[in-house]
Amino acid sequence: MPRLADQKNDFPQWYLDVIQHADLAEHADVKGCIVFKPYGYAMWEAIQQDLNRRIKALGVQNCYFPLFIPESFLNKEKDHVKGFAPECAVVTHGGGKELAEKLYVRPTSETIMYPTFAKWIHSHRDLPLKINQWANIVRWEMRTRPFLRTLEFLWQEGHTAHATKDEADAMVNDALKMYADFDREFLALPVLRGRKPDHEKFAGALYTLTTEALARDGKAIQAGTSHNLGQGFSEAYDVKFLDAAGMAQRPWITSWGLSTRIIGTVIVVHGDAKGLRLPPSLAPVQIVIIPIYKTDAEKTAMLSACKSLEQSWSPALRVKIDDRDDKSPGFKFNEWEVKGVPLRVEIGPKDVEKKQITVVRRDTGGKSAIPVASASAAAVQTLLHDIQATLYAQAKQYLDDHTREASSMDELALLIEEGNMVWTSWDGTVASANAVKEKTKATIRLLPETDRMACGKDPVSGKQGITMALYGKAY
Amino acid sequence: MPRLADQKNDFPQWYLDVIQHADLAEHADVKGCIVFKPYGYAMWEAIQQDLNRRIKALGVQNCYFPLFIPESFLNKEKDHVKGFAPECAVVTHGGGKELAEKLYVRPTSETIMYPTFAKWIHSHRDLPLKINQWANIVRWEMRTRPFLRTLEFLWQEGHTAHATKDEADAMVNDALKMYADFDREFLALPVLRGRKPDHEKFAGALYTLTTEALARDGKAIQAGTSHNLGQGFSEAYDVKFLDAAGMAQRPWITSWGLSTRIIGTVIVVHGDAKGLRLPPSLAPVQIVIIPIYKTDAEKTAMLSACKSLEQSWSPALRVKIDDRDDKSPGFKFNEWEVKGVPLRVEIGPKDVEKKQITVVRRDTGGKSAIPVASASAAAVQTLLHDIQATLYAQAKQYLDDHTREASSMDELALLIEEGNMVWTSWDGTVASANAVKEKTKATIRLLPETDRMACGKDPVSGKQGITMALYGKAY
Repeated sequence: MPRLADQKNDFPQWYLDVIQHADLAEHADVKGCIVFKPYGYAMWEAIQQDLNRRIKALGVQNCYFPLFIPESFLNKEKDHVKGFAPECAVVTHGGGKELAEKLYVRPTSETIMYPTFAKWIHSHRDLPLKINQWANIVRWEMRTRPFLRTLEFLWQEGHTAHATKDEADAMVNDALKMYADFDREFLALPVLRGRKPDHEKFAGALYTLTTEALARDGKAIQAGTSHNLGQGFSEAYDVKFLDAAGMAQRPWITSWGLSTRIIGTVIVVHGDAKGLRLPPSLAPVQIVIIPIYKTDAEKTAMLSACKSLEQSWSPALRVKIDDRDDKSPGFKFNEWEVKGVPLRVEIGPKDVEKKQITVVRRDTGGKSAIPVASASAAAVQTLLHDIQATLYAQAKQYLDDHTREASSMDELALLIEEGNMVWTSWDGTVASANAVKEKTKATIRLLPETDRMACGKDPVSGKQGITMALYGKAY
Repeated sequence: MPRLADQKNDFPQWYLDVIQHADLAEHADVKGCIVFKPYGYAMWEAIQQDLNRRIKALGVQNCYFPLFIPESFLNKEKDHVKGFAPECAVVTHGGGKELAEKLYVRPTSETIMYPTFAKWIHSHRDLPLKINQWANIVRWEMRTRPFLRTLEFLWQEGHTAHATKDEADAMVNDALKMYADFDREFLALPVLRGRKPDHEKFAGALYTLTTEALARDGKAIQAGTSHNLGQGFSEAYDVKFLDAAGMAQRPWITSWGLSTRIIGTVIVVHGDAKGLRLPPSLAPVQIVIIPIYKTDAEKTAMLSACKSLEQSWSPALRVKIDDRDDKSPGFKFNEWEVKGVPLRVEIGPKDVEKKQITVVRRDTGGKSAIPVASASAAAVQTLLHDIQATLYAQAKQYLDDHTREASSMDELALLIEEGNMVWTSWDGTVASANAVKEKTKATIRLLPETDRMACGKDPVSGKQGITMALYGKAY
């Protein structure tokens, strides 16, 4: 079994090793892109299924808009085009001819969706309009890292239009809560919630809310963001409605998204020295059963015991028997540990004799024997729930331990250097944020969600802060 | 309620009217593309869910490959590039710079996947390799028709590699059987199965198998195709494996796909003068319940009866109560008929008084009263099964009635003109097929799947045929 790079000493190489040896993805022959291999793509399918249910529960309907955005459409919202146009892939030829108007491959879909909103929305009775799409997105990017940063990625993007700012604010909050709940419940990811400072918000937005997780190398990483786009896009794309009094109004628009980047987040938050650790709700394989034998007779008996277990657990649980003949049990143990399978079951002659199974938890490494009679699907489900809770608790502990506070620049720099996210006072200027970035490479990950929080002096300018701000190095 | 164009006299306009009034899709602001609206996209989601299950049952795993194909990759298989390059959208700029190598937006993914196959396949133990992806596809196309022909469309594409031709043949057949089963069981679509003549096969394939359905305007339309790509792509992309004897061999590759075009197929096969008719398995809404009332007291009573029914049927059945206050029952009847909902339930004061519901089937128009006590979810499910079977039987009858045989050119031309698909003898030359096309606009839709079928003289050349061939006008 190939060794992984040491997680503590070379986190970036450890990350690449995990992706390779867990067989999640590989670099594609197109620069900046990856191939999602079946085991990695299965995680995305599980994410889609769970998140889709939550999206629909918010009264949002799925639809699908074109991949291409005519240049003139992208250009209409000035902040937005400034932010995204430089990142775009541009189609100049089609059907063997040069195009009269260039087409941009969508870097996000506001500019192709909202001209259509203008056709769909006429009256306050057409509001709220709530749609979502699952789609591929292209943002030009050469410093790639699988999942975390790729030229093409997959995501969902929700877009809604509302009659009032209050309703749009509520939607933005509901979407953020959905992401935080999904992160916690499905991915066992603890996140901090907050608002981006203006200079870090989505291009064209009024404000951006974010969920931030903390990787084991001390870097912050977004895990779902939600934007109140105000009325700027409505203005740019001439979306309007007649209110109950018959007055023409501009709707308030929101957008919110979560991408395949979240798979990278799961790896960097839960992964350990031995590889991936998957929360059971997400894991394509929840339990791997490994027969241990020397003789042919033992093999027959062990495989039969394995199959009987599989039958009692499947399809309620996602179970796999690793019956490969050409690999040793030790090789298999390592491989399934790298792949992050939450629970390993070993069945050897002694287990069969004692009518027990040996179970090994991936979260704690804890090994124990369980009587076969007590290993019902329900009992194992309970164990998986405990693994899910433990992974969350471990990550929460790490997040709590590494969310610190500083009042001076030296303290801030040291805490960042040591791999923390750090609260400090901020005077609200980009200059101060930039000075911190220059010294520590950390940026403001978020501000408090609503209130500005009592605070002291900005460690850069020495001026009275206007709010606390959470700094962190980012992916 | 807006009227639809007459299906018999102006089928193309009827088709567009159905799509508009059933709220399935609309032309996007990008030429050649459509916006899949929620009701139309829900059909695609249902198709994905059911077909995905069948694909996985064939031992195929989902994955995801890049959207972009470098020009040099596309160019390696000569027949393939000749067929597809002229249809491609080409990215020439990215990240603000002109690219050193052009990127083609995938028109199908053979040329981006198989270079990766070369990395994955080394030994006969790596075979068969069976993968599938759900993705968006771009083929330049200006004569657009929603669903049936669009510049961008959605599809699944399966790709497999095998050690022997026999195994690849079996896979191609399994995929075709899967499509035919899916068409029949899920979409209530009867199809003919067969093999494409060489001049109509997939660019670069050894042979192509196809399922063809027949629209109500007498046109043939593909409903899932499957290709044996032989060893040509293995050669072009240098995919090889060591067989059990240690000899280097080229794997046999297959690919097979089904696209959003199938939504158009459902419309043109099942639709009638009143609009869409959806098979219950596919229908986003299987049953619409419409309360009928005049007074407020009646309204309260009817809505309560509607809700009680909904509770007893949902979530086993997909039920919607149309409680809009500003629309008349007649308006609602028409609207849900256009949208193809399989079963309408009406509840008025007389129904409540008699403890019954009035049900109207979309397939036959049949109206009947059913005692509430007999309207369990299971009973209604049985009724929906019957609707599904009836839609299939109606379409099968139409297909049988319009699959004819001709022995002379005049007879062939007349039968095509009358809206049939027509079997006739073929001498195997493209010249004869082209002569038929010139006179009738019909092309060979398929040849018999395996045997060549006994036949007489080709009506064009007068020479002895080598097989029967099925001609039809195509979408």
